[in-house]
Amino acid sequence: MTDKIVVGVDLGGTIVRAGAFDAQGTMLAARETPIEAARGPEAGLRKMQGLIEQVSAESKAKSLVGIGIGASGPVDPIRGTINNPFTLPTWEDVRVVDWMIKAFDVPITLENDADVAALGEYWKGAGQSVQRLYAITLGTGIGTALILDGEIYRGVDGSHPDGGHHLIDPLGPPCYCGLHGCWESLASGTAIAREARQRLKDFPESSLWLNSGGDESRIDAQMVTDAARQGDPLATSVMGKISHYFGLGLANIVLLFTPDMIVLGGSVMKSVDLFLPAIKNTVQEIDVMVPASRILIVPAKLGNLAGMYGAAYTVIKKWNAGVMN
Amino acid sequence: MTDKIVVGVDLGGTIVRAGAFDAQGTMLAARETPIEAARGPEAGLRKMQGLIEQVSAESKAKSLVGIGIGASGPVDPIRGTINNPFTLPTWEDVRVVDWMIKAFDVPITLENDADVAALGEYWKGAGQSVQRLYAITLGTGIGTALILDGEIYRGVDGSHPDGGHHLIDPLGPPCYCGLHGCWESLASGTAIAREARQRLKDFPESSLWLNSGGDESRIDAQMVTDAARQGDPLATSVMGKISHYFGLGLANIVLLFTPDMIVLGGSVMKSVDLFLPAIKNTVQEIDVMVPASRILIVPAKLGNLAGMYGAAYTVIKKWNAGVMN
Repeated sequence: MTDKIVVGVDLGGTIVRAGAFDAQGTMLAARETPIEAARGPEAGLRKMQGLIEQVSAESKAKSLVGIGIGASGPVDPIRGTINNPFTLPTWEDVRVVDWMIKAFDVPITLENDADVAALGEYWKGAGQSVQRLYAITLGTGIGTALILDGEIYRGVDGSHPDGGHHLIDPLGPPCYCGLHGCWESLASGTAIAREARQRLKDFPESSLWLNSGGDESRIDAQMVTDAARQGDPLATSVMGKISHYFGLGLANIVLLFTPDMIVLGGSVMKSVDLFLPAIKNTVQEIDVMVPASRILIVPAKLGNLAGMYGAAYTVIKKWNAGVMN
Repeated sequence: MTDKIVVGVDLGGTIVRAGAFDAQGTMLAARETPIEAARGPEAGLRKMQGLIEQVSAESKAKSLVGIGIGASGPVDPIRGTINNPFTLPTWEDVRVVDWMIKAFDVPITLENDADVAALGEYWKGAGQSVQRLYAITLGTGIGTALILDGEIYRGVDGSHPDGGHHLIDPLGPPCYCGLHGCWESLASGTAIAREARQRLKDFPESSLWLNSGGDESRIDAQMVTDAARQGDPLATSVMGKISHYFGLGLANIVLLFTPDMIVLGGSVMKSVDLFLPAIKNTVQEIDVMVPASRILIVPAKLGNLAGMYGAAYTVIKKWNAGVMN
């Protein structure tokens, strides 16, 4: 039986996950549940609390010594608040750290979800001990994180830079971030679904008609990537366009950061095969100004678990450093 | 009389500068001369050597203990080579460090010119002691540098990331970097001159006709910024477009790095007033996802001297740390 555990929480726009870890980083128990953000922050925080209690109990540990939370941002790690009405509707300035301290009376950390996913890959995944690790999470949106010597790179006042919303094409679609043609608006899971819906009527032979039951609104990114892999003409065309834009954003990351490794994760990146031609093309194109071909570009290893691992790591690092008992 | 000095060299595409500094960073002597790169690396290295000898003598110091060189990149700081046939024609794989060691028998450092200009501003200029300092040098091209806790951020294998060539608009003009519509192709001094030349015939009333003697090829960025400040319609229109693109690139730097401070330097940025409306607009537009309004965006303080200061600092830091005597 393990004496002490920490819990890592990964709060996304759709699902909240919690995992219990011992000091060596072995995952002892894990659970997930829909967050149903629109039902309000209080209901969501209760769910999160319940999940933490559940995995703590299931780990059979004597005591919980800390909780790390990674949340879909913007988050404020210093004030301990989530302010993300964009992908967590109604979640404005939610004091998640205060709530959890009150509930568990242990140290709590709060970080951006892209940062903890990257940390997870640094700690136990594809990027172990990589000095300059850049992580791109391609799911509903696009998240980015830079890990330097195992530490999260932070911006002014501890803020999280948001490379997913950097501009790629001024003629692109509008985004909630305020720009037209940011990376997320052009190359995210949301963009994949939007493109397929908009062009469905031009492809009467597409399998997406059948798969969506003729209801455009049911088309999602998963449906499109599956169809593309089977040679569907609409899905293939959509993925050609999206992966091209993904490659342009990747080129910018390479030019601006030139890291040792770029880790590609997130639900849409399960279909990394569909992106490889564009990625290869990108690297060749920009190998002039920076040594792009020397950068390792690899898929993430921990999948959906990366966020929990990384969130737990933010606490375990302090634990191992003796800051906690 | 000072005992010991270091010399900081700033090698740009047009001018090479050298300055002699004491250990406290006081500039004792400085000189500049055209590099005339196309006459070949050997002629250029001799000029550089002569300049170093001259400022060393003029400083009246007893001994030269080290030389720092900032050069228009790509440079390889580890191998000590400049490989920049783009803005230093004929300079391919030039072993500048070996040459200077042979000539002076002292420690030599080689860095990218944007990096040393940023270091200069960190050491003695606008960004003193700023934790996360991003510097943008807008001249013939666009150079970028990130200084973290007083150290140059480096990419894989010690490389220099090249944010000046990150993509802004896929429909933009081709650039020697291999991309269409990179930042430099859209918002550099070269872009300003190109735009004004291309559109001159549409503006028969423009003062640029007179100022260029009707010879389009004589129009340069300085001529255009001067005319814009006097209300010339062509120059105003050009600067509106260019500063808009500059703002888009700046937005990307803010979104991707969210630093404490952005320092704007370089010859074209002497006209920072012409860029301020676009900069202000940018910051307002992207204050949603990152705390853009909390970033200090300031003009550089050291002007043309920044590169020499920063190049000297790379050596003086080692000197102060006791690595050198």
